[in-house]
Amino acid sequence: MLYGLGAIGTRVAKAVYGRHDLHVVGAIDSDPAKAGRDVGDLIGQEPAGIRVSKHPASVLRDSGAEVVVHTTRSYFAEVYDQLAEVVRAGVNVVSSTEELAYPWLRTPELADTLHRLSMEYGVSVVGTGVNPGFAMDLLPLMLTGVCREIRKVEVTRVLDATKRRGPLQQKIGSGMTPEAFERLAIAGNIGHVGLVESAALIAKGLGIRLDNIRETLVPVIAERSIRTDYVTVETGQVAGIRHRAVGLLNGEEVIVLDLEMSLGAEHVRDAVRINATPPIDMVVTNGIHGDEATVNALLNAVPRIVEARPGLLTGDELSLPKGTIGVS
Amino acid sequence: MLYGLGAIGTRVAKAVYGRHDLHVVGAIDSDPAKAGRDVGDLIGQEPAGIRVSKHPASVLRDSGAEVVVHTTRSYFAEVYDQLAEVVRAGVNVVSSTEELAYPWLRTPELADTLHRLSMEYGVSVVGTGVNPGFAMDLLPLMLTGVCREIRKVEVTRVLDATKRRGPLQQKIGSGMTPEAFERLAIAGNIGHVGLVESAALIAKGLGIRLDNIRETLVPVIAERSIRTDYVTVETGQVAGIRHRAVGLLNGEEVIVLDLEMSLGAEHVRDAVRINATPPIDMVVTNGIHGDEATVNALLNAVPRIVEARPGLLTGDELSLPKGTIGVS
Repeated sequence: MLYGLGAIGTRVAKAVYGRHDLHVVGAIDSDPAKAGRDVGDLIGQEPAGIRVSKHPASVLRDSGAEVVVHTTRSYFAEVYDQLAEVVRAGVNVVSSTEELAYPWLRTPELADTLHRLSMEYGVSVVGTGVNPGFAMDLLPLMLTGVCREIRKVEVTRVLDATKRRGPLQQKIGSGMTPEAFERLAIAGNIGHVGLVESAALIAKGLGIRLDNIRETLVPVIAERSIRTDYVTVETGQVAGIRHRAVGLLNGEEVIVLDLEMSLGAEHVRDAVRINATPPIDMVVTNGIHGDEATVNALLNAVPRIVEARPGLLTGDELSLPKGTIGVS
Repeated sequence: MLYGLGAIGTRVAKAVYGRHDLHVVGAIDSDPAKAGRDVGDLIGQEPAGIRVSKHPASVLRDSGAEVVVHTTRSYFAEVYDQLAEVVRAGVNVVSSTEELAYPWLRTPELADTLHRLSMEYGVSVVGTGVNPGFAMDLLPLMLTGVCREIRKVEVTRVLDATKRRGPLQQKIGSGMTPEAFERLAIAGNIGHVGLVESAALIAKGLGIRLDNIRETLVPVIAERSIRTDYVTVETGQVAGIRHRAVGLLNGEEVIVLDLEMSLGAEHVRDAVRINATPPIDMVVTNGIHGDEATVNALLNAVPRIVEARPGLLTGDELSLPKGTIGVS
């Protein structure tokens, strides 16, 4: 069942059409323009016989859904009521809510409450996606699986936003003046939601309690003018963000996450360096494509959440992420 | 508890000394020269108060071990009785036995029997290590976790055996004539145990049943003379192996594993290319060091096997591999 049919939710719906093991049995969206429309019709496919509803309660009651794929908002507190309703209906949840990658960091009480509720109803809830949920947390964590004497985990993700969705280009401040960016940054209204959660998830996986996580956020300034389908950036304006989160243990930097998302970024990649025995130096050349990978991370978590133990879980507690070769 | 104190087992013992969460509570080895010796003494550390025994039954009964780290032989049929005895004692097993990475490939009945036995006694058994167990199976499988429409998974591992243990250098035929190598290859007495199991494990993870797995094994011929601490190879003699396993689905190559282990190998690396949406192109520069990584893969599986469901499991069924930052 799909809860949310925005940019990610509609891509999830399309991807389900290509899988023989998953079927859409219900769809929820709060947008009045979508309510009542057939899901297949909405995504330019043949009719699915499933109409989008504004009413979660009835869809949860009638659809017989085993798993909800939830793609509505970024902050846990914003989606808590949505998730709690699904849990009380006895349905598992895979969510793209970024803070849910490690909800105990900023909202520990709310996380504990949902955890208890999930156990009470015997269902499992997890937050996933490509970032947070894979490139900057589970992938480096998995690579530590062949390491000991781990001293430092450094993760670098550089992506070129030129070909990404308009909302992402706006999210990273493209076309702003550096001053406008700074005001937003000081107010906490710009930056990548989920970066500190990734750092906290790695720390939790490695069995450590960080002293704290230090965040820095600076604009990437355009050195030449850039024009995309969505925005025009003049030389000297903001072309994107560089967001870093550094986890400290006994005063030492043990987790360093460095994320650049900007128009025209060079050396696009996902890189992990682990200072340990043995050392690990990994690069995914050209990086992992964000939107596609998030959709796949969500769908590939569906069979795994069904088999997971009850509770509000973190990604490392599920079985190994993996795809499937379908008969599409 | 350690079952086997050979090259890997003694390294495992040393690594346990560096972890606060694991303790050696018993040790078994069939070598009369080791029996009766203190484990700490055997590995050049301070005495552990644990003596090596030749008798599994008494150690299993008296040690209170929660997990056995088993490092004796490469083939499942050779170790079946050892594992069955541990399982009947109600103790979980993490084993370096290469065939155990996917024991259903060559010995499905024996695997089913151990699976049923493990469920009966409520314990979990898994085979792991760096290869098989990580570099050429779980790591590529994990990377498919952000993919859909997976058409092909290609894995390349190239390692320079020059600095590896003498037994490994011999195992890959270093210093043989090409004719002697060919005789061994035809008899099935040379090559990497576990490569076809890795292919089968990836296939199982992706939810497909391969038509078959084609293996090829050719010698790498020395183009100059090579001298290591263990062997001298003249020009024209064998410097190592190139072992490939290709998994076919409906006649198409969907899994291609390419392993080179040779003295003086160049472009040492672990590489994964996935033809999918999105495509993935990953490289671990300089590769993942084999012996160290195998020891760590075994130990890092110990906390995870305790929480796993009962049965003879494959690596993808456990929670995400991950290391730990100890207080060593």
